[in-house]
Amino acid sequence: MKKHNYSAGPCILPQEVFEKSAQAILNFNGMDLSILEISHRSKEFVAVMEEARALVLELLGLQDKGYQALFLHGGASLEFLMVPYNLMKENGKAAYLDTGTWASGAIKEAKHFGETVLVASSKSDNYNHIPKQYVVPTDADYFHCTSNNTIFGTQMKEFPEIGIPLVCDMSSDIFSRKLDFSKFDLIYAGAQKNMGPAGATLVVVKESILGKTGRHIPAMLDYQQHIAKESMYNTPPVFPIYASLLTLQWLKKMGGIEAIEKLNDAKAQLLYDEIDRNPLFKGTAAIEDRSKMNATFVLNNEVHTETFDKLWKAAGISGLTGHRSVGGYRASMYNALPIESVQVLVDVMKELEHKI
Amino acid sequence: MKKHNYSAGPCILPQEVFEKSAQAILNFNGMDLSILEISHRSKEFVAVMEEARALVLELLGLQDKGYQALFLHGGASLEFLMVPYNLMKENGKAAYLDTGTWASGAIKEAKHFGETVLVASSKSDNYNHIPKQYVVPTDADYFHCTSNNTIFGTQMKEFPEIGIPLVCDMSSDIFSRKLDFSKFDLIYAGAQKNMGPAGATLVVVKESILGKTGRHIPAMLDYQQHIAKESMYNTPPVFPIYASLLTLQWLKKMGGIEAIEKLNDAKAQLLYDEIDRNPLFKGTAAIEDRSKMNATFVLNNEVHTETFDKLWKAAGISGLTGHRSVGGYRASMYNALPIESVQVLVDVMKELEHKI
Repeated sequence: MKKHNYSAGPCILPQEVFEKSAQAILNFNGMDLSILEISHRSKEFVAVMEEARALVLELLGLQDKGYQALFLHGGASLEFLMVPYNLMKENGKAAYLDTGTWASGAIKEAKHFGETVLVASSKSDNYNHIPKQYVVPTDADYFHCTSNNTIFGTQMKEFPEIGIPLVCDMSSDIFSRKLDFSKFDLIYAGAQKNMGPAGATLVVVKESILGKTGRHIPAMLDYQQHIAKESMYNTPPVFPIYASLLTLQWLKKMGGIEAIEKLNDAKAQLLYDEIDRNPLFKGTAAIEDRSKMNATFVLNNEVHTETFDKLWKAAGISGLTGHRSVGGYRASMYNALPIESVQVLVDVMKELEHKI
Repeated sequence: MKKHNYSAGPCILPQEVFEKSAQAILNFNGMDLSILEISHRSKEFVAVMEEARALVLELLGLQDKGYQALFLHGGASLEFLMVPYNLMKENGKAAYLDTGTWASGAIKEAKHFGETVLVASSKSDNYNHIPKQYVVPTDADYFHCTSNNTIFGTQMKEFPEIGIPLVCDMSSDIFSRKLDFSKFDLIYAGAQKNMGPAGATLVVVKESILGKTGRHIPAMLDYQQHIAKESMYNTPPVFPIYASLLTLQWLKKMGGIEAIEKLNDAKAQLLYDEIDRNPLFKGTAAIEDRSKMNATFVLNNEVHTETFDKLWKAAGISGLTGHRSVGGYRASMYNALPIESVQVLVDVMKELEHKI
């Protein structure tokens, strides 16, 4: 029996992605070869890469708007330094919003390259909300924010209107909700939440913002090089990209972002309603900033911990333990998690209430 | 029917790696979860990472000698810049040997960081041999070389004795032959030849050479950070690392590097003997520098190209076309290629001889 997988990432992917990618490892595309042993320059893999890049732009509504989609190595953590390398001028500065562990990791790396302006931070409240009413300096080279904070269960609902390039780490909520993606100049995301398995990194960049820093950029860190080589500057992570394509194809078949957002809204409502109703639990994030991807909550009385943990584990739930920075529980409800799994969790929360 | 896969990389892996990794995608380790959906912090994946890191050192004979094995993102191309970032002092210099396309790519990236001394190059001969008799400056911060040149079919048989750190890109021949690996201070390799599928990168580094440059190194490019985080500074490429572990386990079961080298020697001898005997063909690399991984050869008379291409394709051979820089043919005979596949190629070469 498959588990109800609430893992924060790497995380649940659609079952058909597992089945099709396992088949491709045995025999890809009728080639009598494994996807793991073919050249990345083969026409079969070039077709995978091209379809994946095009499908990203299609799903985000960014075709023919001057954007390029790239599948790179390194995870979002490598983007933390590629962003300033490519966008921060020599002796320039960049503005950052600090909403959690990953945002502050991005700031730390940017400091190697020049001045960083911290426009706001919710660190002193253990990142339990998204700062608002901040001012972004108009003379910064770009503004960087993190759309969803997996660890703290917060999510940006609005993005500032600014006159400088808007850069966003969307690792944990890309493809989960409708946004006007054309407001962003650079979006990046590690694959391992809503897009695919760990090992591939998506970058969506508006070409017109590149090439303006005066810096000499090592080739592997230079978005323009990756664009010129059609995302094959070096051997790409072939299998993670193929499994990402399968996930994107599944999303398109489901009706795209608009359709999946409705399901995500329903899942989040089901769980948050129970967190707010059930007297045994409380949410840890400010209500207006609650993430629809990661719901963080705690028991009001920790004495029930052992009983609750036994109940959810017995129900086939896995990955519900909260991050050590927050404690308690974290229910990650990515695109591929069925609402039935959320119902199982809600039932267990009700069961605990009746039991004690 | 499986093809005889001569692809230069990504390339053939052991059949049991395909079977076991496909199974792990459906249900890993009896967890009722896919290897693609589990947390990299789960005890099951931490065990994979630890076994892979330990097995690398065991197979190379480097346990308890002050080395660390890391599985990183980015491919060898990211190492081209991580090496100078970590080893070249501010205002320092590094010495490089230019033996082909990848060696020259490494040199190009190092130039962003300081002075590079080119100790020798075979570029003017289209890299058909390995330069010898060169002098490595003793005041350089390190010496960098490339052990095997896939495109040109050459391989270093000896490495210089120098008093400075010896760095080697072994992407295309690591785990294929016995060397005294303790003579090297830093070895790196993209996984996608003898170690696993594309998307993971191995770094084996002697810890004592690190931390001496005075540079501020971004965390994702800092070997000491990766060591401190036990190769989990950020989410690692989970599946490529798992498939690499399966490949390393297979190699150990086969008898390790010593045993596989004998098979590799037999395969190379079988093919080179035919290249030298058959009047229709000639090798393109200097005989004393011939690679046992990649044999490059051409038809003496190109008029036979169409006939030969039909013959090998009909025999179920794939991936034999040479790189555009050399032309002709390239037979990549990595660890997992069975000698039976080499015999099929030799038979086809003989068949061509009898046919015309």
